[in-house]
Amino acid sequence: MTETTMAREIAEQPEALARTIDSLRPLRPELHALAQGRRVVLFVARGSSDNAATYGRYLLEVHSGVPGGLAAPSVATHYNADLDLSEAVVVSVSQSGETGEIIETQEWAAARGARTVAVTNDGDSALAGAADLALVTRAGRELAVPATKSYTTQLAAMAVLADALSSKPGGLDTDLDRVPDEVRRLVERRDGVDEAATRLASTPEALVSGRGISFGTALEAALKLEETCLRPVRGLSYADLRHGPIAVVDAEHVALLVSAGDGPMVSGMTDLAHDLRRRGAAATVGIGGDTDFAAAVDVAVAGPALPELVAPLALVVPAQLIVESLAHRLGLDPDAPRGLSKVTQTDPENT
Amino acid sequence: MTETTMAREIAEQPEALARTIDSLRPLRPELHALAQGRRVVLFVARGSSDNAATYGRYLLEVHSGVPGGLAAPSVATHYNADLDLSEAVVVSVSQSGETGEIIETQEWAAARGARTVAVTNDGDSALAGAADLALVTRAGRELAVPATKSYTTQLAAMAVLADALSSKPGGLDTDLDRVPDEVRRLVERRDGVDEAATRLASTPEALVSGRGISFGTALEAALKLEETCLRPVRGLSYADLRHGPIAVVDAEHVALLVSAGDGPMVSGMTDLAHDLRRRGAAATVGIGGDTDFAAAVDVAVAGPALPELVAPLALVVPAQLIVESLAHRLGLDPDAPRGLSKVTQTDPENT
Repeated sequence: MTETTMAREIAEQPEALARTIDSLRPLRPELHALAQGRRVVLFVARGSSDNAATYGRYLLEVHSGVPGGLAAPSVATHYNADLDLSEAVVVSVSQSGETGEIIETQEWAAARGARTVAVTNDGDSALAGAADLALVTRAGRELAVPATKSYTTQLAAMAVLADALSSKPGGLDTDLDRVPDEVRRLVERRDGVDEAATRLASTPEALVSGRGISFGTALEAALKLEETCLRPVRGLSYADLRHGPIAVVDAEHVALLVSAGDGPMVSGMTDLAHDLRRRGAAATVGIGGDTDFAAAVDVAVAGPALPELVAPLALVVPAQLIVESLAHRLGLDPDAPRGLSKVTQTDPENT
Repeated sequence: MTETTMAREIAEQPEALARTIDSLRPLRPELHALAQGRRVVLFVARGSSDNAATYGRYLLEVHSGVPGGLAAPSVATHYNADLDLSEAVVVSVSQSGETGEIIETQEWAAARGARTVAVTNDGDSALAGAADLALVTRAGRELAVPATKSYTTQLAAMAVLADALSSKPGGLDTDLDRVPDEVRRLVERRDGVDEAATRLASTPEALVSGRGISFGTALEAALKLEETCLRPVRGLSYADLRHGPIAVVDAEHVALLVSAGDGPMVSGMTDLAHDLRRRGAAATVGIGGDTDFAAAVDVAVAGPALPELVAPLALVVPAQLIVESLAHRLGLDPDAPRGLSKVTQTDPENT
């Protein structure tokens, strides 16, 4: 089997992450200064970038004590709402830096008083050029349509941002330094990856769940399954899942659960695994978690040995490997999913 | 066929909405005073209440010029994050007013300086009792598990809130006064409802899309299909749909599209309908929109003759009727979906 571009780009992540962390850390004083007197951080993004922003939002609130939120781009692009953003830092996240609505929303925010930070993989992009400060990820050129190394390097940018805005910058350094090796180990070992892909291939319905700091990882795993494997998948926090949609779970559903190895969400994710089994799910596949979690799922996929706050930078890697493997089993080309292109425009008139 | 409780409660909405609007309007001066000096409104909710909050957030930003956001309850309940909320109004939305994590999050927010507003159908609930101000909806007791009248009366509370916080309170009055009659007309006429249910019954896959002010309506229609008809459904803004998940659309998918009759989203929703047809969707069902939109979908379901800002209060009603009708066709009991109860707890230990 020829190696796919997606597989190669998954394997490039240790170096991409190390480069990005090294190149963004020196910007912490500038980030700190830019955020002075600002009380809230709002993220502007779509797709995988939006899932990276979801991690950024939780990390800012939980680790840095800074209220965060996800802006609704249409409030800018379609309603041109007159909001006062003079107390906000607006962080726009776009791999290409060329998505029309993201550029337009950043411009709108700046005109309403926001200070702006662009997180992009292209330092020459329109988004980077117009921002007060650009955090340029060092993923290198990404050729496969599904975002892998561009996504995890965005997560690294989020971690540097949250670290810079915390009361004790540097607090995440030791853990972040361990990320590239953990990613390398996960790519090489692939523990449980192929069995997970086999289970997912056995039935057409899937759902993905995670919560809190790892919620963005669940959303990203769901988006990848959907775009790359053409599986209609929902990604839900376990709280939202329990609140209603869990009713649909039956013997046609495989549930993919993601959890850090520590933190306040592991026990709830373990309870969810037991509950899904009781409800007759076809199978539960768990990525990460602790030993109780691994014992509660039908297929345990090894996750990173990293604390919850930085775990998402590596926790998504087994999900990427599963998606790549599943695409092969389904006879699909993971590098070029049906009907998608690399630079995304959300309204035809924006192209 | 015996009338279901859900059908009866759908039909009770005109009176429930009129009562709620009448009883909440006099609280506008109190709401205005409570929000003095506050710069942001954060909503705390789950499920249907979260979909009502999504409408509230867009309406506040678009109509009132007040930044809004959706709080992540786990930041309070699981991480106990130390955020400064002294510039925030926190609006907690819960039909029962007894959901543990919502009460806990409201308490956490108040301890961090937020002023608190509870939107609940039970004025004697713990949530109402602990809030600085309670907006008690007048839905009357709701017996069917799927929220209908409790949801639309929450939307009415959102409209009163946004109106009170706008620079010209009273600006939505004329349009809000027309809502009960429009809902009554939609319930009586049922234009397109049964054909829509037939199409949805013909294939197992569905997706729902809307955007902006009507995005919450799309999410609510998706949640209802999922909980009540056990359809694994995703609700997506058309921007997010175009950004990737649209790749999954094939001849097994019925797309349910919701749109107000005017405003900046109708043309994009119409383009989406054409695009979904080109991609070979089994059928497109459109609720509301203008004549171009109705011509672009396979099944046109009549929506309300209301301007976009208040349209969601009635636009969801045809979706409720479709869900109730579809449940019958699928041999399901719409009043008591599998595995759900009326007062929801998201963590077992909260019960």
